[in-house]
Amino acid sequence: MSQGRFISLEGGEGVGKSTQLRLLAEALRARGHDVVTTREPGGSAGAEAIRALLFEGDGERWSPAAEALLFAAARADHVERVIRPAVAAGQWVVCDRFLDSSRAYQGDARGLGDADVLALHRIGSGGLLPDRTLVLSLPPGEAEARELARDGAADRFRRRGDAYHARVRAFFERIAVEEPERVRLIDATGEEGEVTARLLAALDAIA
Amino acid sequence: MSQGRFISLEGGEGVGKSTQLRLLAEALRARGHDVVTTREPGGSAGAEAIRALLFEGDGERWSPAAEALLFAAARADHVERVIRPAVAAGQWVVCDRFLDSSRAYQGDARGLGDADVLALHRIGSGGLLPDRTLVLSLPPGEAEARELARDGAADRFRRRGDAYHARVRAFFERIAVEEPERVRLIDATGEEGEVTARLLAALDAIA
Repeated sequence: MSQGRFISLEGGEGVGKSTQLRLLAEALRARGHDVVTTREPGGSAGAEAIRALLFEGDGERWSPAAEALLFAAARADHVERVIRPAVAAGQWVVCDRFLDSSRAYQGDARGLGDADVLALHRIGSGGLLPDRTLVLSLPPGEAEARELARDGAADRFRRRGDAYHARVRAFFERIAVEEPERVRLIDATGEEGEVTARLLAALDAIA
Repeated sequence: MSQGRFISLEGGEGVGKSTQLRLLAEALRARGHDVVTTREPGGSAGAEAIRALLFEGDGERWSPAAEALLFAAARADHVERVIRPAVAAGQWVVCDRFLDSSRAYQGDARGLGDADVLALHRIGSGGLLPDRTLVLSLPPGEAEARELARDGAADRFRRRGDAYHARVRAFFERIAVEEPERVRLIDATGEEGEVTARLLAALDAIA
């Protein structure tokens, strides 16, 4: 049995995560890996039910702490029911968002603090970290322009404004510096195929 | 404005919590207090939605950690939207179950550990503790007999068996010893009115 792996794909809204998740999974399958794609919040039956609670209603429905607890509960279910069993079975799990999104959004932008988000993750999911985290990155303004061109609408997480999104972007850039072995910043400009090639290159040593 | 208070009512299943909650609220109103009764999990719109998730499906739907995170999320919402504002407005909040139920059920009986349950409560609700916690207590076997006589049915939390419930009872007895100022063990045998009188007597110094 081949060695299972856990890869998370991160980045602010509009950086092309969904497209790249699909293309990366295809590329890994072409290399012979058994690939499972999943997402957060959600990815398991229980976590999808929690996701529905998180996305219903307006952006102020939950306090930062309640929101972080719900994300951590969804993640605990997802990790236990989907991610750990798949990796143990030798599969490659590629996940659209994981812990670092909670650190960026609830921990940093909403002010809960990184230590508390990490504490919730330790309690909920045994502190599981991806083998590698790929952060798609675009220059300020470009992600927002792409997003607007795509659907014109703004969901509750997008409505939080430019300063909020700039802060999230800065957070991802910071953890790429602080945890260079796990977290890699990937230039998301250019053709889709070029970006996928950069993602694959950033799986050096584990792929 | 009079001084607001926060009182929780605890105890295993079948000890008469619902009846005593109503009678205690009536007695406190007769003394001139502005009383709000509430319950956990639930007590606010967001927390009631989380409650529905917790009670749907079978008893093994959620891992102990996911369950504890959901209880803590519901509690965070309940504390912020209902309990703190009511106490700040001078009301007496009497709550059917609070933190100590999570400590007994998820922390002790399901094995998550007291430290982690308290950490979730610190992160979610700023560690808010009741001014007093009244634990209704019956001799082993009597609660189960009452419960069976009442409705014959067993919900998912009751199906967990005698050893589980004995452990929960022992936990409440232990915290009454460890935190004697806040937590009072109340004999729940005898006539309803007698039990209510014992509850009122145990509000000495704060009523």
